[in-house]
Amino acid sequence: MQNNLSAKTILFISYNNYTKIFTMSKKLTKRSEDYSKWYNELVVKAGLAENSGIRGMMVIKPYGYAIWEKMQAQLDKMFKETGHQNAYFPLLIPKSYFSKEAKHVDGFAKEAAVVTHYRLRTTSDGKDIEVDPTAKLEEELIIRPTSETIIWDTYKRWIQSYRDLPILVNQWANVMRWEMRTRLFLRTAEFLWQEGHTAHETREEAIAEAEQMINVYADFAQNFMAMPVIKGVKTESERFAGAEETYTIEALMQDGKALQSGTSHFLGQNFAKAFDVKFLSKKGKLEYVWATSWGVSTRLMGALIMTHSDDNGLVLPPKLAPVQVVIIPIYRKTAQLKDITVKVNEIIAKLKAKGISVKYDDSDNYKPGWKFNEYELKGVPVRLAIGPRDLENNTVEVARRDTLTKEVVSMDGVDTYIENLLHDIQQNLFKKAEDYRNTHITEVNNFDEFKDVLENKGGFVSAHWDGAPETEEKIKELTKATIRCIPFDNKPEEGIDILSGKPSKQRVLFAKAY
Amino acid sequence: MQNNLSAKTILFISYNNYTKIFTMSKKLTKRSEDYSKWYNELVVKAGLAENSGIRGMMVIKPYGYAIWEKMQAQLDKMFKETGHQNAYFPLLIPKSYFSKEAKHVDGFAKEAAVVTHYRLRTTSDGKDIEVDPTAKLEEELIIRPTSETIIWDTYKRWIQSYRDLPILVNQWANVMRWEMRTRLFLRTAEFLWQEGHTAHETREEAIAEAEQMINVYADFAQNFMAMPVIKGVKTESERFAGAEETYTIEALMQDGKALQSGTSHFLGQNFAKAFDVKFLSKKGKLEYVWATSWGVSTRLMGALIMTHSDDNGLVLPPKLAPVQVVIIPIYRKTAQLKDITVKVNEIIAKLKAKGISVKYDDSDNYKPGWKFNEYELKGVPVRLAIGPRDLENNTVEVARRDTLTKEVVSMDGVDTYIENLLHDIQQNLFKKAEDYRNTHITEVNNFDEFKDVLENKGGFVSAHWDGAPETEEKIKELTKATIRCIPFDNKPEEGIDILSGKPSKQRVLFAKAY
Repeated sequence: MQNNLSAKTILFISYNNYTKIFTMSKKLTKRSEDYSKWYNELVVKAGLAENSGIRGMMVIKPYGYAIWEKMQAQLDKMFKETGHQNAYFPLLIPKSYFSKEAKHVDGFAKEAAVVTHYRLRTTSDGKDIEVDPTAKLEEELIIRPTSETIIWDTYKRWIQSYRDLPILVNQWANVMRWEMRTRLFLRTAEFLWQEGHTAHETREEAIAEAEQMINVYADFAQNFMAMPVIKGVKTESERFAGAEETYTIEALMQDGKALQSGTSHFLGQNFAKAFDVKFLSKKGKLEYVWATSWGVSTRLMGALIMTHSDDNGLVLPPKLAPVQVVIIPIYRKTAQLKDITVKVNEIIAKLKAKGISVKYDDSDNYKPGWKFNEYELKGVPVRLAIGPRDLENNTVEVARRDTLTKEVVSMDGVDTYIENLLHDIQQNLFKKAEDYRNTHITEVNNFDEFKDVLENKGGFVSAHWDGAPETEEKIKELTKATIRCIPFDNKPEEGIDILSGKPSKQRVLFAKAY
Repeated sequence: MQNNLSAKTILFISYNNYTKIFTMSKKLTKRSEDYSKWYNELVVKAGLAENSGIRGMMVIKPYGYAIWEKMQAQLDKMFKETGHQNAYFPLLIPKSYFSKEAKHVDGFAKEAAVVTHYRLRTTSDGKDIEVDPTAKLEEELIIRPTSETIIWDTYKRWIQSYRDLPILVNQWANVMRWEMRTRLFLRTAEFLWQEGHTAHETREEAIAEAEQMINVYADFAQNFMAMPVIKGVKTESERFAGAEETYTIEALMQDGKALQSGTSHFLGQNFAKAFDVKFLSKKGKLEYVWATSWGVSTRLMGALIMTHSDDNGLVLPPKLAPVQVVIIPIYRKTAQLKDITVKVNEIIAKLKAKGISVKYDDSDNYKPGWKFNEYELKGVPVRLAIGPRDLENNTVEVARRDTLTKEVVSMDGVDTYIENLLHDIQQNLFKKAEDYRNTHITEVNNFDEFKDVLENKGGFVSAHWDGAPETEEKIKELTKATIRCIPFDNKPEEGIDILSGKPSKQRVLFAKAY
């Protein structure tokens, strides 16, 4: 559907060169040559997303969206299992709502897309359209960059008594932040996400909720995305605008850069105070409501791609692959295809009975070699190839995407074999990413070591920090590294700050980050 | 969570008056008194949606959203079964894209929300924020009212050859049309919808697709919403802006007004020409691509509510009810509740095994009478009540929401009984709505009869029309009735137009409409 060669070109290529040309056009820049270029090419060539005609905004293509749908479905299930319900709030937020929480508006004002008019009209020469100046809004509306303000304006109507609490609501939505430098999935002006917004009677309950949700995110990242993450707390300067505490999950990409993959915020009573949301407690006292918010976005697509993929293309963990198994017939004559198809249909029925998604690509537009490359590029975890000799021998060739290895196995019990294989692949991907991550957490004890690791090895650098935002800022200026988090499982340890030399009570994790 | 009495008031009401007060506050205006008021009250009180602080924009509350999610899930399944994939396109569309298809821009320019700036800044006194005039967009961006233009701009990149066709893509998204007079679900400035956009090699294939999708919509309306619809073609003046032909499903509400519930458009080559999208055909010729688009929105929520609900509240067809069965224990002593709960858990397990969603409301905040009213208001199809006497007699009281009738049935096989009952309720709701609709299609043969039926009976009026847009317009001016559609199954019939007296070849369906 979306190949890069124009039809005109194709018509003048003889059939024999077909495979070769297509293969070439699909070939990616190597990661070792230019990681960033590799990523951009992969996203486009694997049919995941592409830039639209509008600055910073992407089109999520069907294959990319199918992966996002798998993520959504699983996350939604986990949210519901933890007692949350979905709802939907307005896209546009009056400018005055933003001003109500001081830090919040500071955080988002600089990237706000502003609606000022509500009508177009024909120009006086009748040839074009223009904004109708008579249709100016009294108050400008902002396209939500996040929905705390509109939601707390709503919660004011919903909450009077402790009986109305907790409110455990999530929203699946698009949001907009006018980023200047954008990259597909990782940083786009518009992105898709979910944002949970909860309201509670007590501080403790709200903190427990925020912690629960960062655990849900970590569970999802590790067990579905096969992506190891470090759970921790953000420093003040990396905190969400308006939060008292931000929890984060941090992943490590193959180029040694960290990627913040999900955050959960304990908002204290900040938004309740900004929007005057009080409740009558069990003791009959009027008190401000406690809040959390938490979100993950289509950025996770970028994380997924960069964690596992290789120079041949995408590598998908089976649990999130839209197609888990692709079957390709190898044949010369139509009669052979017929026989193969009979056998394939048996296999498909067995796999489907096990809940495994299968695609049988018996199209005759392309040769098997082309198809092999195509599904490798698209990251399908398992490929089966079946030819006339396999029929004779009652075998099938099984190729796994993660290791690029092949095996010929017996047709008997192939469904169970594949079921186990998918499980193995899921585990292996996690293990591989975890090994990489674990060998890329480096303890350093002075600033030279710190810089050396950042420049030559990459990954997380575990170093002492004196706790001062100024030191953190200085380190960022000098090295571009930021404190990704203070891990939850950190051990107290006396030391001295790598830059300031001041006393420190614990190590924190630095890294260059996306 | 969202009651209308403030907590402060409640505290001064003695426990005995609790039920009564709540019941009163939940009481709806009768349909016969003021249908419109009844609708607005029902939407809010049943917890479906409410107005936000922003003109014309609604908050879809958790219970309303849960119903919408059920609709989405079923529709999405039907789209995928007919070969469609989901994708996502940018929210913002450059103004110039709109101008490319002349009729399209005419149709949507007057209700376009326009983004003109991309940054806010602090005012010079430091006390407020304002739009930053230096951050003005070179070209204004429109929040999508529908996505044909941005999608066909994208399809130009995706389509070169017949091999790239068909493209069968759907998008779930929010859209915005700046309506002046809004009503919850029925007409809001922002609404949620899906929009299918397909590209084809031939006119015939595109028409077949547009027809297929109106059939999918009709299937969904009738078999899931239990809402009878008439399938037909729109007249030119009611056609989608940019379409060659618009197919529609039209439903009839209980107040005798019609509601357009879904449309599917054959777009011809209009958008392909506007965006210069050509493909190399099998014969080696460059041709413009043929297109369709089709959509349904949260407006369906309004249709669902108005088709079945009564003066006691919402009535939901079992297939779309978030909770299909509610179980309420009737007890005085805690020991009784314990015994009841043991029995209830057995029933729940059996119902869940049959895929039936159940809620057991054993909360002690409210008395059974309050709960009965609450779940009636929320339209839960089946209510079970179990008390100590039921335990003795091995019985359970089963109440159905659609007929408001109760029966005491044996606990043995109650799961099968309920399974059948849910099926019956689904059928009964459709039958009831169909009977109402069928008795509200009235054939008339002159303009006096026409006006009389519209004013005193309502519903669809089947009348001869001469085919002229001017006559249609005149009838609308005089009576507010519009031609809802020319039904697919219309029979040719010679006659004379009810207003102009000119010859007519067929009857069409008129109605006042939402």
